[in-house]
Amino acid sequence: MNKNAVGIFDSGLGGLCALREAIRILPGEDIVYFGDSGRVPYGNRSFDAIKKYARQDINFLTGKNVKIILVACGTVSSVAIDYLKEISDIPILGVVETACEKAVETAKAKRNKNIGVIGTAATISKGAYKQYIAGLDPNCEVYSKACPLFVPLVENGHLNDDKITKMTAEYYLDGFRDLNLSSLILGCTHYPIIKNIISETVGTELIDVGLEAAHRLKRELTEKHLLNDAGGKGSLDIYISDEGINFKDIASNFLGLDINCKITQIDIDQY
Amino acid sequence: MNKNAVGIFDSGLGGLCALREAIRILPGEDIVYFGDSGRVPYGNRSFDAIKKYARQDINFLTGKNVKIILVACGTVSSVAIDYLKEISDIPILGVVETACEKAVETAKAKRNKNIGVIGTAATISKGAYKQYIAGLDPNCEVYSKACPLFVPLVENGHLNDDKITKMTAEYYLDGFRDLNLSSLILGCTHYPIIKNIISETVGTELIDVGLEAAHRLKRELTEKHLLNDAGGKGSLDIYISDEGINFKDIASNFLGLDINCKITQIDIDQY
Repeated sequence: MNKNAVGIFDSGLGGLCALREAIRILPGEDIVYFGDSGRVPYGNRSFDAIKKYARQDINFLTGKNVKIILVACGTVSSVAIDYLKEISDIPILGVVETACEKAVETAKAKRNKNIGVIGTAATISKGAYKQYIAGLDPNCEVYSKACPLFVPLVENGHLNDDKITKMTAEYYLDGFRDLNLSSLILGCTHYPIIKNIISETVGTELIDVGLEAAHRLKRELTEKHLLNDAGGKGSLDIYISDEGINFKDIASNFLGLDINCKITQIDIDQY
Repeated sequence: MNKNAVGIFDSGLGGLCALREAIRILPGEDIVYFGDSGRVPYGNRSFDAIKKYARQDINFLTGKNVKIILVACGTVSSVAIDYLKEISDIPILGVVETACEKAVETAKAKRNKNIGVIGTAATISKGAYKQYIAGLDPNCEVYSKACPLFVPLVENGHLNDDKITKMTAEYYLDGFRDLNLSSLILGCTHYPIIKNIISETVGTELIDVGLEAAHRLKRELTEKHLLNDAGGKGSLDIYISDEGINFKDIASNFLGLDINCKITQIDIDQY
C-alpha cells in the first residue's frame, strides 16, 4: 500500500472527464490534478513545445510526491508518452494505450477489425493510435479523422442538442457511418462531453479514453501494490496555470462534478 | 525621417490582415512582425496573463529598434493598451482606438448612432470598444456580442461559403440584423477573413480593424516625421514563438500575401 497521491494532468478542461471517472473508480485515493489552462490547447503546438510543456507538467506533479501519473491529454499521450516514461522515475500512464487495448478487445469480441479514431489535428497526424493498434493486432484497419472544432465547441458550451455541434459532427463524421466500425475511439478528453451527438452521427460503440484510463489506473495500482485501501475518502487538490477559465463552473455545469477544494494557480514556467 | 522599422504583433495569425494592409499602405517601411503562435489564443486568458504576454511581445520588438508598434491583437488592444503605453518609450497604437474613431465618423456621416461590435469573449466582456466610443460621442449606442467560435473556424479553414461558419454567424449575429446599425466593428483581427459571411448575415458596413490601423499608422508616422520616404521598398522580418502553425501557407492561402522572408522562431519566455 502507498498513501501518496495519484497525479493527473491535461492541457485544460478535458482531463476533468478522466478526473471524474478516477474519483468514482478510486474513491480512497488522494488526487492531485493539474490543468495547464494558461497554455491550452496543446493540439496545434509543435512537437518541441508539447514535449517541453509535458516535461514541466510532470515536474510539477512529481514535486507533489505522486506515486503514478495519468496523462489525461490526448495530444501528449500521442506524441510524447515514450519521452515522459524515459525521464520519469514513477509509472506514467497515457490515455492512448488504454483506449487502444479496449478497442482491440472490442474488435475481437465483435469479430470486426474496423476501428475509428477521432482527435485533434496533432493527435491524428502523429498517428499514435494507429501505430499502437497495429502493434496489438496488425490485422485491424484504423480509420482516423481530425476534428479540430470539437474542442472550442465544447469549451464555448455548444453541447447536447446544439445545432452547430451537430452540423460540425456531420461534417467530420458523415463518412464514418458506412464503415461498419466495431468501435470509435474518442481520442481527445473533451469529446465525451458531446458523446451523445457523436454517437447519433456515427451510430457505433464509443470508447471514452478517460473512463478506460481510470479503469487501467486501478489495475496498475492494484498490480503494483500501490492502491490506497485504508478505507478513507481520498482528497482532491487542483492546480491550474491561469485563471482565465472557470474550472469550478465548468466541472459542475458540464460534468456534474462538484469541486469543493481550493483551486491554486501556479507559474508552470518555473518547472 | 526615421529609417527604423515598424513593429507589429498579434497573438497569432489574425495580425497578418493588419500586416497585409500595412505593407500595401506603407510600401517604403521595413516591418518586423511577431506572431505569438506558441500562446495563441489570448482571448480567454486572464488579465494578468494577457498583460505579461503583451509586455514580453513589446520587449521583443523594442529590442529590434522599432520606431512605433502597432498592436494588431484585439484582446491586447482592449485590455492592456494603456499599460503598454505607460511602459513604452516609443509610440504604441492599438486597433481599438483607430476602429472606434472610424465607427464614430461613420455614425456621424450617416446620422445613425447605432454601432455594433463583435470580438472574442475577453474583448467584449472588457467593454473597451464601448468605453472608447462613449468617450468620443456619448450619444452613440453600442451593441456588442462575443463570437468565440470565429477564431477556430478561421484557423481551421472554414472560410467563404462554409456552411458551419454561416450557421455560426447566424447564431451569433441574427439579432443584429434588425438593429439598423451604421457600422459593425470587426473587433478581432481574424474576422476580416470571413467578412463576406458576416456581411451577408448582418447586412451593414463593416469596419476592418487591421485596415483602419494601417491608415492610422501612416498618419502617425507622417505627423511625427517618422515616415521612411527614401523611396526604396521596405523589408519584412517575421518572428513566431512556435512552429506548430504554418504562417507562410496561411498567409498565402487566406490573404494572398506571399511571404518570401525567413520566419524565425524565438523563445518569447526570455523577454
